[in-house]
Amino acid sequence: MTSRATASLCRSMGAGGQGLRASRFTLAYQPLAARCSYSSIYTPKKKERVVILGSGWAGYGLARTLSKEKYDPIVISPRSYFVFTPLLAGTAVGTLEFRVTLEPVRRAGVGFYHGWADDVDFARKVVTVEANATDDMVGRTVIPPPGPDHSQEGAQPRLKGETFDVSYDKLVIAVGAYSQTFGIPGVREHANFLRDVGDARRIRLRVLSLFEQCSYPSRSETAAQQHSKDSSLRTATPLTDDDKRALLHFAIVGGGPTGIEYAAELHDLIYDDLRKLYPDLMKFVKITVYDVAPKVLPMFDQALADYAMKVFHRNGISVKTQHHLERVRLADGYLGSEQGGLKIKIKEYGDEEVSAGLVVWSTGLMPNPLVKKLEAKALPGSEATAPETVHHLLRDRRTGGIKVDPYLRARTTTSTDPAEADDKGASVLPDVYVIGDCAVVQDNGGALPKTAQVASQQAAYLARQLNKGDAAGMPFRFRNWGTLTYLGGWKAIHQSSADKLSGWLAWVLWRGAYLTRSMSWRNKILVPVYWVITWIFGRGISRF
Amino acid sequence: MTSRATASLCRSMGAGGQGLRASRFTLAYQPLAARCSYSSIYTPKKKERVVILGSGWAGYGLARTLSKEKYDPIVISPRSYFVFTPLLAGTAVGTLEFRVTLEPVRRAGVGFYHGWADDVDFARKVVTVEANATDDMVGRTVIPPPGPDHSQEGAQPRLKGETFDVSYDKLVIAVGAYSQTFGIPGVREHANFLRDVGDARRIRLRVLSLFEQCSYPSRSETAAQQHSKDSSLRTATPLTDDDKRALLHFAIVGGGPTGIEYAAELHDLIYDDLRKLYPDLMKFVKITVYDVAPKVLPMFDQALADYAMKVFHRNGISVKTQHHLERVRLADGYLGSEQGGLKIKIKEYGDEEVSAGLVVWSTGLMPNPLVKKLEAKALPGSEATAPETVHHLLRDRRTGGIKVDPYLRARTTTSTDPAEADDKGASVLPDVYVIGDCAVVQDNGGALPKTAQVASQQAAYLARQLNKGDAAGMPFRFRNWGTLTYLGGWKAIHQSSADKLSGWLAWVLWRGAYLTRSMSWRNKILVPVYWVITWIFGRGISRF
Repeated sequence: MTSRATASLCRSMGAGGQGLRASRFTLAYQPLAARCSYSSIYTPKKKERVVILGSGWAGYGLARTLSKEKYDPIVISPRSYFVFTPLLAGTAVGTLEFRVTLEPVRRAGVGFYHGWADDVDFARKVVTVEANATDDMVGRTVIPPPGPDHSQEGAQPRLKGETFDVSYDKLVIAVGAYSQTFGIPGVREHANFLRDVGDARRIRLRVLSLFEQCSYPSRSETAAQQHSKDSSLRTATPLTDDDKRALLHFAIVGGGPTGIEYAAELHDLIYDDLRKLYPDLMKFVKITVYDVAPKVLPMFDQALADYAMKVFHRNGISVKTQHHLERVRLADGYLGSEQGGLKIKIKEYGDEEVSAGLVVWSTGLMPNPLVKKLEAKALPGSEATAPETVHHLLRDRRTGGIKVDPYLRARTTTSTDPAEADDKGASVLPDVYVIGDCAVVQDNGGALPKTAQVASQQAAYLARQLNKGDAAGMPFRFRNWGTLTYLGGWKAIHQSSADKLSGWLAWVLWRGAYLTRSMSWRNKILVPVYWVITWIFGRGISRF
Repeated sequence: MTSRATASLCRSMGAGGQGLRASRFTLAYQPLAARCSYSSIYTPKKKERVVILGSGWAGYGLARTLSKEKYDPIVISPRSYFVFTPLLAGTAVGTLEFRVTLEPVRRAGVGFYHGWADDVDFARKVVTVEANATDDMVGRTVIPPPGPDHSQEGAQPRLKGETFDVSYDKLVIAVGAYSQTFGIPGVREHANFLRDVGDARRIRLRVLSLFEQCSYPSRSETAAQQHSKDSSLRTATPLTDDDKRALLHFAIVGGGPTGIEYAAELHDLIYDDLRKLYPDLMKFVKITVYDVAPKVLPMFDQALADYAMKVFHRNGISVKTQHHLERVRLADGYLGSEQGGLKIKIKEYGDEEVSAGLVVWSTGLMPNPLVKKLEAKALPGSEATAPETVHHLLRDRRTGGIKVDPYLRARTTTSTDPAEADDKGASVLPDVYVIGDCAVVQDNGGALPKTAQVASQQAAYLARQLNKGDAAGMPFRFRNWGTLTYLGGWKAIHQSSADKLSGWLAWVLWRGAYLTRSMSWRNKILVPVYWVITWIFGRGISRF
């Protein structure tokens, strides 16, 4: 990478093509121009810095494929790693080791700052970062507490730490979306999410801990084991059978692939492994999937969804559709339990609450607070003019995401209500790209789903575009590679535009797909090693 | 296992041989007699229950080798797993996955109650257990806070949880020893131990976090990276070079094998892996081992210890002998750090404190509070008689452990000061065995060291004895298999009564020894897989 490349890039940007309303972004353009001359005079080897916010499927995917010859990529993320999310459910039950789902961002050969992107100054091309290297909640999904107006979209849920600034030449916003609790009381506090590796660890500890708690001697057992007739044997409030039934009920809310796969993996853990260790407890175990919709796995056609339901039914997993969760609260204390059992209120059941030892929440996304903040900002060059010409990022009304053009560039609007803007009148913000869950790209009329597949295709597309140094050319187009979901007991379902598959063969495909798309060679080797080890020796069950 | 075996066992115990003063333990004997008749009449298949307190080298070693045909072993431990401690330092730097050092107790085919043994009623043959299945501190070494008298040997450091009772036929006390902080202020709060897998995880996160913190842009870097001359670029209190030097100083207290091996592994992590990711920080890194003794690795002869020091010197690891640590405290806050740096006061340096980002404490053991409690108890059958005939467990004055006879049975004494008792006059407490760090067995005149080797040999001996159903026979004899210590850079030292070895060959032996003695086949396969993976791809560096 030389000054020539930089200069050519400056030219292509400076040409003002690509349908930009250049005149409206004078301030944004000036630093680039200044940089070009500065860079060619004083630091001829300076590469353009691409700052990527986020280290998920979109951000990490871009970071590892962006040319390091041509660019100086810097990732800013509160996680020091990328999580291979489809395997998370497997780590949550001990089939896989947590770390085989992780790829350290620094190993991608990019710069990295561990922290939260707190703000962006689009005029000065600077990102403000809040340092996060000592966060104790490492690896856990964080849900913002309700804001002062008791809406769910409050401020970021942490104390303000130290901040520092990072300047960029190009900015890629790939911060994803937050989990949405729909304001249901108790979900944020008592339910477990399954989006990060710390969540998986917490769920795993909780499941094993529940079995351990229920295995303490109950009053009747103690009496039976007593060899002498000594009735003074002291046993403190042992669990009754009803208590055990309550604690060993595992409730999963959300019938999408994550919820269904976790239910399937949990079933495998309990019936393959824990049954041998806690045979007396098996009669108390129950797994239930709740969903508000009339049908789970909506992305699959009816035949495959029916097959999934048949497998679940045979495995004894209940699926309750059209059930609305209204509250989660702690039950009254149980023996030895600091967390206690939970009580779930479901609309359809009236006042009668359902007991559970674990609630896994895998439904709903909401905009990242940073996206909301950026959408509310007046964009550079527009502050001083009339109110009707103030620019904002173009917000998607339905999801709250940022709308992008077919080249994944952030679109802007002059409308006072960004969501009301006429799409056709919108322009783009130069050097700012949005990919992944926080981007809304119109594709063949319908918005794309918020999936890993879309995010990684967008990352690959943008890397190709930037590596070519050509921001125009072919627009982004999503190609559906198909959807896979594991159902437990070595069975899966697969659906793509070309074919449908269910059962054991789909399970082979499911494992194969994860292997070839698992990122690093390290994990490509370790994942099958763990599959074999688990197959031979059973799942890891140490409570750690 | 049949009633015949039980009956024969009853006979062998009831014979009152083995040098027991049977008359003094009437109460203890009666339940056994009652049980024999009860068992042969009502539950002919009842096996003798062996309750094992602890799941370390001694407790777990016994549990997995004790005959399940003959006995019904139940382990009671606050940890649900056994830790293969020699590999802990390797997990603390990401060479190995944490879980490959763990063996779940339940997989040994024994009963298990997850909790703290809180008390033993030797007369009724009952252990009181405090339930612990939901402990959040899972896997962390726990140091009791100073007691009300400000001694280091306070109560167990936790709130009283629910308790329940477990009866036993034979009791094996294998609760080990606690870490000793010698009352040095700040050690309990700010130093990291390295005895359990949670400790290793915490150390690992801390080291990686320190490098991450020090990689935030400093004021000068930010200025250099700034393309425009915009001086308003905001950067909050960046770390100075002195700050980085302070945070990247790793202090290890204790020059035994654990401390030396951790220093060696840390050196490997930093120079093999982190150097590539944080090249600019290498000039600030320093590793120091402090010890109060005039020489580290006292169990090795002078030539090997000298070799170790030469290797350390070449690797840039400082070893400061005859240095006395007097206090550890938090330094004043650093950028982004919730834990901040630490300040160490060392007697030899006067008032000038040494800065460090991490203090690893690997020196000193003290008696387990349960052992102290049991030693203070009046033993059954002795309460009602004259004070000079009150029995206690025989306490070792130097270490606070329980003295055992050559068959590892707990010894008792009638002396009012147990420590003052005449060893020869002491008797044994029937059906109570003590093994591992909390047992003191006189072997060829000198006490045995508190090592994994001694504990596992005692466990193997006791299992053999109990499986034979013969509590007499050959007394326990310790055979020194030799000592191995890793020094970093594929070098180790080995010393046994037969030979001495240093360098690469000793390293091969070191790895081989761990492989063959690593417990389960699962881990025997996974450990070398991780060694190869680390050799090819480097150590795991995700902060999780």
